[in-house]
Amino acid sequence: MAETKKKKETKTTQKVSPKEISGRITKTAENMVDQINKLQDPEFTTMQRGKSNVVWDEQKGYLELGEKEITRTFLNIAHARKFMQTALIMTKTQDYLNHNKTASIREIYYELKHTIEDTKENTFEGQDESDPIIVDLEHSVDTIREKLNLHANPKGTLYGNITLLDRMHHNDKFNASKLGRGGWSIMSRVEPEEIELTDTDAEYCLVVETEAIFERLIEEGFPKDNNCILIGTGGQAARGTRRLIHRVHNELDLPVYVFTDGDPYGWYIYSVIKQGSMALAAHSEFMSVPDAKYIGMTIEDIKDYKLEAVTEQMKEGDIKRAKEMMAYPWFQSKEWQSELKLALEQKLRIEQQALANKKLDFVATHYLPEKIKNKRFLP
Amino acid sequence: MAETKKKKETKTTQKVSPKEISGRITKTAENMVDQINKLQDPEFTTMQRGKSNVVWDEQKGYLELGEKEITRTFLNIAHARKFMQTALIMTKTQDYLNHNKTASIREIYYELKHTIEDTKENTFEGQDESDPIIVDLEHSVDTIREKLNLHANPKGTLYGNITLLDRMHHNDKFNASKLGRGGWSIMSRVEPEEIELTDTDAEYCLVVETEAIFERLIEEGFPKDNNCILIGTGGQAARGTRRLIHRVHNELDLPVYVFTDGDPYGWYIYSVIKQGSMALAAHSEFMSVPDAKYIGMTIEDIKDYKLEAVTEQMKEGDIKRAKEMMAYPWFQSKEWQSELKLALEQKLRIEQQALANKKLDFVATHYLPEKIKNKRFLP
Repeated sequence: MAETKKKKETKTTQKVSPKEISGRITKTAENMVDQINKLQDPEFTTMQRGKSNVVWDEQKGYLELGEKEITRTFLNIAHARKFMQTALIMTKTQDYLNHNKTASIREIYYELKHTIEDTKENTFEGQDESDPIIVDLEHSVDTIREKLNLHANPKGTLYGNITLLDRMHHNDKFNASKLGRGGWSIMSRVEPEEIELTDTDAEYCLVVETEAIFERLIEEGFPKDNNCILIGTGGQAARGTRRLIHRVHNELDLPVYVFTDGDPYGWYIYSVIKQGSMALAAHSEFMSVPDAKYIGMTIEDIKDYKLEAVTEQMKEGDIKRAKEMMAYPWFQSKEWQSELKLALEQKLRIEQQALANKKLDFVATHYLPEKIKNKRFLP
Repeated sequence: MAETKKKKETKTTQKVSPKEISGRITKTAENMVDQINKLQDPEFTTMQRGKSNVVWDEQKGYLELGEKEITRTFLNIAHARKFMQTALIMTKTQDYLNHNKTASIREIYYELKHTIEDTKENTFEGQDESDPIIVDLEHSVDTIREKLNLHANPKGTLYGNITLLDRMHHNDKFNASKLGRGGWSIMSRVEPEEIELTDTDAEYCLVVETEAIFERLIEEGFPKDNNCILIGTGGQAARGTRRLIHRVHNELDLPVYVFTDGDPYGWYIYSVIKQGSMALAAHSEFMSVPDAKYIGMTIEDIKDYKLEAVTEQMKEGDIKRAKEMMAYPWFQSKEWQSELKLALEQKLRIEQQALANKKLDFVATHYLPEKIKNKRFLP
């Protein structure tokens, strides 16, 4: 390995002990107990969600939640059930934190579901009741579910010269370029408290949409020849994968280039990695990479690389989606407006794998190196 | 590591050199050339597919193709286009084999797609034209696409005390229990020529449907405490994952236990791993594990483990699917008939993660060890 990057620490990449988060839950609970002791109606405050409270912060470069809060009171009959559910989720996640356990959001639902003694009332009827309560708690204690030791399903693969250390698993230390061509299966949670990025000499991080291109680039020796880390998302990036990209960018100071199909689905994958999504606006800070650049595929590539024979027609849904995206504030740069306009005029989409039409290794030997060398990115 | 298993070799797990497969393609091509030289109409023979030629072989314990062949001739106008496409796929896959390249089935489509000189005819209009030709060739030269250096998308994760060697990637050697809690991302192709299973002291291989349970078992230290290999399929098992399960079973002589949700989707995942699918009947020999056992979830578990509060109702589709499965010849054992009958009577399904209702670690500390100790399997 050549030089090793200096690690940087930001609010979103520093270690936060489970004890600290557990303490925040305790504080929320103590407030409730105080209120009860004073014979007041106990309250729980969280952030309002949904489009009406999502804000595009141009300066920060990501979507975030606005200032609107909601407060629930236990004695309000419309709030009582959610109040009970919140108390259950608080107790259980604190239990996880205190015992170094983690759980999927489905497991915590199942673990907490029961019929309340001497009633016919179930604590939760379905996971659609417990999931929003988890989000309430995330916002209330100003963190992400990963730090409540909760997770959704994992997806995504890591490959390249970067050494990881898993503090919670025999301090395993391994280099993600030495696992054959399969790479490391990215966990559902990759928090700095547990998974350390210890060492890399990579110059940038390339994020790719399809597994086929991920495997192609490894087969061609691209990450080694170009000194980069490769992250395959397998479609829309899972939370764990977004967290890892965020950390690689912020801790290791690596530029992030995103390589997707040239179509609304691919552009959306890029925009979620870069500036977050409406649904998870509150967590953009922890997951987004506003400095990320889009490497391709672009509609211009079709002409530049003579790919006319291997384009695909946009379907109705693609056209509708592209029009919606043109209106998003975070797609207002002239480069993206021109890209989307071109796509809509020609009603064309172009896949990453279409580059195989030149030659199987064209993507690795020509397309990506040229784009990176000449900085031919969309913002 | 304790004792190391002796490796066994069978037809489906032995190494077959790319040269050998390439030679079979050459032979097929030479036959055509001979016919042309003799001014005969050149022929290409493959197996007939579809339900009418799928056979359930009770003795072998898997689905396979029957004896029906189809022969195409170039001068038959209904065959000419497919004949041209077959020649292209033959040439290209042989090229891959001779140059140690692999490609996704989408890449080979894109690589071969072009307009034939001086015509308006495209070689392929869509991947739905190239995919069946690939299958034709697999059957014609009696192999699987993996050995033609073709692959579909990867999915699935490996964890546990087993050492792998990737001959095509710097001879990387790594142990799948030392990669933190993330595990090894199973490649789309895991052929013995390239990926060697070199060393394990595991006593069995546990295949699990959901990523959440995969992560749960690792967090609880289950594979270590119980000396087993863990394979997560993430839903229906991909080809690479099925190949790996097949190899682990046959080469290392490890029993395979499959753990899915107790519902038609889970049972189907099991049956595909065990006896193959109609669509891939020709390849059951290379991928199926007729000796696999089903560990759960079962409808009886609901009563045995008092899970009544965390069952789910079967939907219309589940009921229809369960009825279809009851009629399959490979679900005729009295144990499966009784299981499916019970499910249909109660219209219930039960998920793996529902075991969290007992306690988060119940699946690792009680459910699985008890079932394995008492051999409480479905056949």
